[in-house]
Amino acid sequence: MKEFNIIEHFFKAKSIQRKDVVIGIGDDGAVSHIPKGQALVTTTDTLISGVHFLPDTSPHAIAQKAVAVNLSDLAAMGAEPAWISLSLSLPEVDEKWLEDFSNGLQEHAEYYSVQLIGGDTVKGPLVITITAQGFVPFEQALTRSNAKPGDSVYVTGTLGDAGLGLDIAQKKCIVTDQLNQDFLLSRLNYPTPRLLVGTSLRRIANACIDISDGLVSDIKHILNASKCGATIHVDKLPLSQALKDSVSSSQAIDYALRAGDDYELLFTVSEEQKGHLETTLASANVHATYIGQLNGFVGKLELRQADKPYEYSAKGYQHF
Amino acid sequence: MKEFNIIEHFFKAKSIQRKDVVIGIGDDGAVSHIPKGQALVTTTDTLISGVHFLPDTSPHAIAQKAVAVNLSDLAAMGAEPAWISLSLSLPEVDEKWLEDFSNGLQEHAEYYSVQLIGGDTVKGPLVITITAQGFVPFEQALTRSNAKPGDSVYVTGTLGDAGLGLDIAQKKCIVTDQLNQDFLLSRLNYPTPRLLVGTSLRRIANACIDISDGLVSDIKHILNASKCGATIHVDKLPLSQALKDSVSSSQAIDYALRAGDDYELLFTVSEEQKGHLETTLASANVHATYIGQLNGFVGKLELRQADKPYEYSAKGYQHF
Repeated sequence: MKEFNIIEHFFKAKSIQRKDVVIGIGDDGAVSHIPKGQALVTTTDTLISGVHFLPDTSPHAIAQKAVAVNLSDLAAMGAEPAWISLSLSLPEVDEKWLEDFSNGLQEHAEYYSVQLIGGDTVKGPLVITITAQGFVPFEQALTRSNAKPGDSVYVTGTLGDAGLGLDIAQKKCIVTDQLNQDFLLSRLNYPTPRLLVGTSLRRIANACIDISDGLVSDIKHILNASKCGATIHVDKLPLSQALKDSVSSSQAIDYALRAGDDYELLFTVSEEQKGHLETTLASANVHATYIGQLNGFVGKLELRQADKPYEYSAKGYQHF
Repeated sequence: MKEFNIIEHFFKAKSIQRKDVVIGIGDDGAVSHIPKGQALVTTTDTLISGVHFLPDTSPHAIAQKAVAVNLSDLAAMGAEPAWISLSLSLPEVDEKWLEDFSNGLQEHAEYYSVQLIGGDTVKGPLVITITAQGFVPFEQALTRSNAKPGDSVYVTGTLGDAGLGLDIAQKKCIVTDQLNQDFLLSRLNYPTPRLLVGTSLRRIANACIDISDGLVSDIKHILNASKCGATIHVDKLPLSQALKDSVSSSQAIDYALRAGDDYELLFTVSEEQKGHLETTLASANVHATYIGQLNGFVGKLELRQADKPYEYSAKGYQHF
């Protein structure tokens, strides 16, 4: 089976058709239209077997994670997703694998109203790169660089679940409660991009980032880009019941601070916007948790528990 | 060195700044503006060590080829390039390699006025994926699917050089003339995207494709997408002096028909547009060669030499 046929057979036929796509899969490039008054937001993320997912992960989950981590970056920019391009390096043509992978990808694409507009398949090690494109109204993109001292810091969802999920998947620990185990593994394998929160935060949040490498690691990107410091209260970190049921409270905090792959949003909001934030989150029926405050100590992250400094040494995920 | 630092250190500092880029490298996504009246064109291509380039290829050449093959796809759509995103999977952080690679990439980016707007670096096998974005005025994109029976078929530049270059690089053959060898290797390692031809062909060509997998392989995409057939005269194929000097005339034709990696454009033009084509190419100071004619025999490619059918069995590059 040739490259041309793989894309046509497994991906093109299943693709949704957006009205803003003039030419999709099957030409040298895709042609699409940006709505008036909107800027284009582009992001790219690569998943590699053995690095970003365990080799025995289902192709369905791999595909959905590859889509979700890219949409999570769009969410962190306050953007609405529109199109994705796929580069798929495969050791061999395994039709069953491709069937499951393409089903997973297209289910997510359909759910998020995103169209696969192009693809490249090559023979090589299993590597998946997706580039996602979306829109944000002019001047409303959320960035890492606009946080201000005095801002309150919030996170969506719960933290640390995917980290414990990874340890379960790697058999480093055992969670006996089946429901808890399923939940933690699904948080690892099927992350949810916080798109509705992202678009709701336009003109409310000063800064936003998605937590892919761990809270401590990722908040530092905001602190460095915005030239701020932060105090985070570890007792305020949102923890799932499954995480709290499965490990000690100090371990749970450690997962929440250190572990990557949660794909929750961390954002900062000025005092004046806090009322606006609460009504917006309530009307969108989404939840975010206050975890601390920004200050003027540039690049400095202080962790506190009750009224004492919290001792913490581990680092976020290191790419090399 | 962390992912963040690799992108910042090796790529961001060297990047050109386009006015249409609001947010470039360093956030969750890039934010950019499309000019009024223009559609977005997106394409993605992956290069893998040992598949798309020999493992001993210089990082400078790998980077430039990764950019060029993507810009070639934009050229084939009649688009003007604007932005690229890079996903770089690396087995290790080799600073010398990254220095050469990023220099090669940014030289090309600067030459073609393209800005690197985002990147992802991951630990893994050497795999380079670039997504390129550009613009084309509404309704003026060149496609594979609009060719008509009766159209004349043209190609830019010369064909087969990269194919012989690959055989030289793989030591399958020896070209004793040093200048010829250098030329053929440079055609393999440093392909030229035919951007000026591509944009010049808007509203002139009926269909266009870039020759990446070989003439025979790629023209069939046009024949299938446009429901046409073609007669190609192999004696009309444009061959470089270096190719003709180095191999027999039948071998030269075989390279020109079969070999990939030339990244020339193949396009079709109606009888009425031929005068327009000639004046446009002359004023842009670029050359294209007439090689045959389209007809109504759907999907059928006939090769002729003088007045006889030309026997040909080899196939274009097979991805799997």
